[in-house]
Amino acid sequence: MESLARQSAKLCPFVKNHANKSALQSINGSSLANQASMCPVMGPALTEQKRSYTTPSKPRFASATATQEVDDYEILDHSQTQERSFDYNGLFEDELSKKRSDNSYRFFNNINRLAKSFPQAHRATEEDKVTVWCSNDYLAMSKNQQVIETMKKTLDKYGAGAGGTRNIAGHNKHAINLESELAALHKKEASLVFSSCYVANDAVLSLLGQKMKDLVIFSDELNHASMIVGIKHSNAKKEIFKHNDLIDLESRLSKYPKSQPKLIAFESVYSMCGSVAPIDKICDLAEKYGALTFLDEVHAVGLYGPHGAGVAEHFDFEAHRKAGIASPNYKTTLDRVDMITATLGKSFGTVGGYVAGSSNLIDWLRSYSPGFIFTTTLPPAVMAGAAEAIRYVRHYIKDRQLQQLNTGYVKDNLSKLGVPVMPNPSHVVPIVIGDPAKAKQASDLLMNKHKIYVQAINFPTVARGEERLRVTPTPGHNQELSDVFLEAIDDVYKTIELPSIQDLTNQGGLCGVGDPNYIHQDNLWTQEQLNYTEKDLNENVFNPVIDQLEVSSGIKY
Amino acid sequence: MESLARQSAKLCPFVKNHANKSALQSINGSSLANQASMCPVMGPALTEQKRSYTTPSKPRFASATATQEVDDYEILDHSQTQERSFDYNGLFEDELSKKRSDNSYRFFNNINRLAKSFPQAHRATEEDKVTVWCSNDYLAMSKNQQVIETMKKTLDKYGAGAGGTRNIAGHNKHAINLESELAALHKKEASLVFSSCYVANDAVLSLLGQKMKDLVIFSDELNHASMIVGIKHSNAKKEIFKHNDLIDLESRLSKYPKSQPKLIAFESVYSMCGSVAPIDKICDLAEKYGALTFLDEVHAVGLYGPHGAGVAEHFDFEAHRKAGIASPNYKTTLDRVDMITATLGKSFGTVGGYVAGSSNLIDWLRSYSPGFIFTTTLPPAVMAGAAEAIRYVRHYIKDRQLQQLNTGYVKDNLSKLGVPVMPNPSHVVPIVIGDPAKAKQASDLLMNKHKIYVQAINFPTVARGEERLRVTPTPGHNQELSDVFLEAIDDVYKTIELPSIQDLTNQGGLCGVGDPNYIHQDNLWTQEQLNYTEKDLNENVFNPVIDQLEVSSGIKY
Repeated sequence: MESLARQSAKLCPFVKNHANKSALQSINGSSLANQASMCPVMGPALTEQKRSYTTPSKPRFASATATQEVDDYEILDHSQTQERSFDYNGLFEDELSKKRSDNSYRFFNNINRLAKSFPQAHRATEEDKVTVWCSNDYLAMSKNQQVIETMKKTLDKYGAGAGGTRNIAGHNKHAINLESELAALHKKEASLVFSSCYVANDAVLSLLGQKMKDLVIFSDELNHASMIVGIKHSNAKKEIFKHNDLIDLESRLSKYPKSQPKLIAFESVYSMCGSVAPIDKICDLAEKYGALTFLDEVHAVGLYGPHGAGVAEHFDFEAHRKAGIASPNYKTTLDRVDMITATLGKSFGTVGGYVAGSSNLIDWLRSYSPGFIFTTTLPPAVMAGAAEAIRYVRHYIKDRQLQQLNTGYVKDNLSKLGVPVMPNPSHVVPIVIGDPAKAKQASDLLMNKHKIYVQAINFPTVARGEERLRVTPTPGHNQELSDVFLEAIDDVYKTIELPSIQDLTNQGGLCGVGDPNYIHQDNLWTQEQLNYTEKDLNENVFNPVIDQLEVSSGIKY
Repeated sequence: MESLARQSAKLCPFVKNHANKSALQSINGSSLANQASMCPVMGPALTEQKRSYTTPSKPRFASATATQEVDDYEILDHSQTQERSFDYNGLFEDELSKKRSDNSYRFFNNINRLAKSFPQAHRATEEDKVTVWCSNDYLAMSKNQQVIETMKKTLDKYGAGAGGTRNIAGHNKHAINLESELAALHKKEASLVFSSCYVANDAVLSLLGQKMKDLVIFSDELNHASMIVGIKHSNAKKEIFKHNDLIDLESRLSKYPKSQPKLIAFESVYSMCGSVAPIDKICDLAEKYGALTFLDEVHAVGLYGPHGAGVAEHFDFEAHRKAGIASPNYKTTLDRVDMITATLGKSFGTVGGYVAGSSNLIDWLRSYSPGFIFTTTLPPAVMAGAAEAIRYVRHYIKDRQLQQLNTGYVKDNLSKLGVPVMPNPSHVVPIVIGDPAKAKQASDLLMNKHKIYVQAINFPTVARGEERLRVTPTPGHNQELSDVFLEAIDDVYKTIELPSIQDLTNQGGLCGVGDPNYIHQDNLWTQEQLNYTEKDLNENVFNPVIDQLEVSSGIKY
């Protein structure tokens, strides 16, 4: 046997090229099959086998047991063929090989963020400490002591899980309070909490399309995967408009009669590039053409607006600052958005998602949406912690400002180093690399040499050729930490020769960097807004806890 | 104005019938429109308005701003028409009215389950205590002290939330440990955790159909909403087979060539009726016809099998009891199931869902499933608590047995009272009412008079006409509590004259009660199995925590 193997290794160019065992094991199914079809020995054998698969034996009716209740199906008698089952594992292997070969295979980093010393985390061992620069815990609320204490108390009193769906034993005061807080934050009548904002987006968009005959959904081309999936599941006609392009959007809206139901689905801050939607102007178009507006504020809640309700609140900053929890005495941009979805898992430090809107809309979603109805309620401690985080975030404008100031410091200094950051008016710092292997190499070097964790972002999260490092400073990423980070980035750029601003400019620009057509936008936070203190907020910012009321989601039955 | 209103109230039969303000406000949009169309004043006005909607002004090209980049669309000039927007709120109101009128509108009960005195809970006020008899916290693990302490410690050390997706800053030792525990529990190579099992079922089934050309999914007609949704999203061809009907399943399987990819999707315990799938025989058919098997054990994990891995483990009870964490030396039913999904939110007391299967399958799902990729990781404390619950449940066979014994006591005594319980071999106690209004009335009477909470289950969770009270005893629902419950049920049956076993028998049966064609099935737990103690389990039941390894989901990169 041994000598036969040695002999074939000499004769067969294929085995020769894959002489060691691990190389042979790494070959995927389909490329092996291709090689085999070219072999003078294996080729004819495979052709014969293939022929026998595609010519099944004459159909006849089923066996004794199966005929008892059988209709007159044409049934293939499998015992009469040599036919084999579909190669399921081969398919999985092939598709994984594809990911490996185009460098989109994902290696997860084991990152254990430490509540007492965030932005520090440890890797697999507690001694192996790194500084995290890419978390979406934007305000570090997950380490907030008030939030943690609230969760621990709730655990002690109400236990670990909700024990049921909202309809069956899983509705409680924590859900009522949280939904009340969320409705108040967004100055809407009601809100509804889901397992995640992925689920909220999918559930809301899909139900709207399924229940609203002839609905057309107008979707920004850079919308998040959860919205794309929701729109697909809605079966509604869709019109994808160019990113933040009002002219393209209007030209599409105007194709349909005003009375035909329409929905414009968009985000406030686009997470991977940091661009910001012209919410007010989109609302103008919605009004003109009779469309509902669906706004995803996942990457904006906590960070914008005087109370952290998001970019829609930021558009009328002064009015909301003065009004506190109340509504200003005119129709604000926030009022004009029909439904806002967002997450509890980023600036609010826990997990879960929600939608806020009119009482009827929310009651309708509560009553009809399978993604809400058929799932276990979030744990009481998670909901209590999220509600506490919202109350805290609403009041502490300083955290929002610090986050902005730290972001500005990092952006300015990266620019001085010649490191290409996608220009935007928000808190996101996307460093453009433009190659999946190099992005991973940069991330690995930061981690292993500098003990800094910034995840490389590749397809499908961003388009191929636009791979990046996405940096997210928090209020705790102060100047001292930033200087360490900037030095490390500079070293990485020099070590592996990544494209500089100048390089991208020379090639005509990439992702807005060095692009002569990019139109500058001012930062959302103005200098004046950055100077306010908590005293400048209307003190009436706390929503009274309403656990005495038999309400759900702001709906009174 | 006042006198005009009084006058029209006399003249108009419609206003007369709806004289008080609240009655007028409660009328929904479409019924009002119907009434108006019959009115001699409003009718002709409405007809005229309708005509102007359906005859838009001559299409022309768009306004100056919109033409800059516009294609040659036919654009309706909305400013030229009197056309109004679609009545979105009217649609929501109408659909809510439908729910109210057919008694499927849901009133959520505010139930705050108390960790220190479960099955007690309080309602809106802390003094208003009730006993919960319908939670899916089957083993009361959400009040387990080991679980709660683990969660509190994890909160203190690692904070409230994960702060990112699994790919970006949200992968950690808690995810690794939990997935390792789950893989070990089901004796599979790997597992993957999702936000919920609703998401897991949707994500897994939809991806399989989308990526596997020509896949046919064979789905039990009583499958859970999450599986139905997943199959719909998969775009695969589906064959719905009669509930637990092997003959129907085989007749459908045999229509397709063996080499065509197939998947049989089914549950082990069907939650609303308590029926149990013939898993072994379904695996026989899968093997014969070359199909993958997808088994949802949501309502079975923790409750069946010597270690609580579910019904698939229960099929080879003795072999698994002796083997402990290891695999028996033959191919068990558990081994034959390709993928198992289940929840962390019922017997494991927390929240979340998962799938367990081969390493390649799990790595493929991890790499391609949007529902996994684009969502925030569960909080570290939730994952640590769930892992602790699994370790505890695996070892404490006594809780599983007590749950069974308490269920048996309740079922036997309900039968003696003539109360119709759907016959089944599992832990679910579905009391058949068959009318939505009566089911709610029974639930309300139990709550308000007897301080016992059993949710009325209506459409869409069960079919119309099969409304029920679903009772779920836990290890803590002892004989004393059960006797109080049984007395209360007896009172409710007498007070509102609900149909008895005899009534249902007389009408030819309903949901298996009084049905002469129902075939009795023995309880899954045998007397012998109920007599084992912890000492009878192989001591090798704990999975070593593997937080030193850079693995995810049981996958080694």
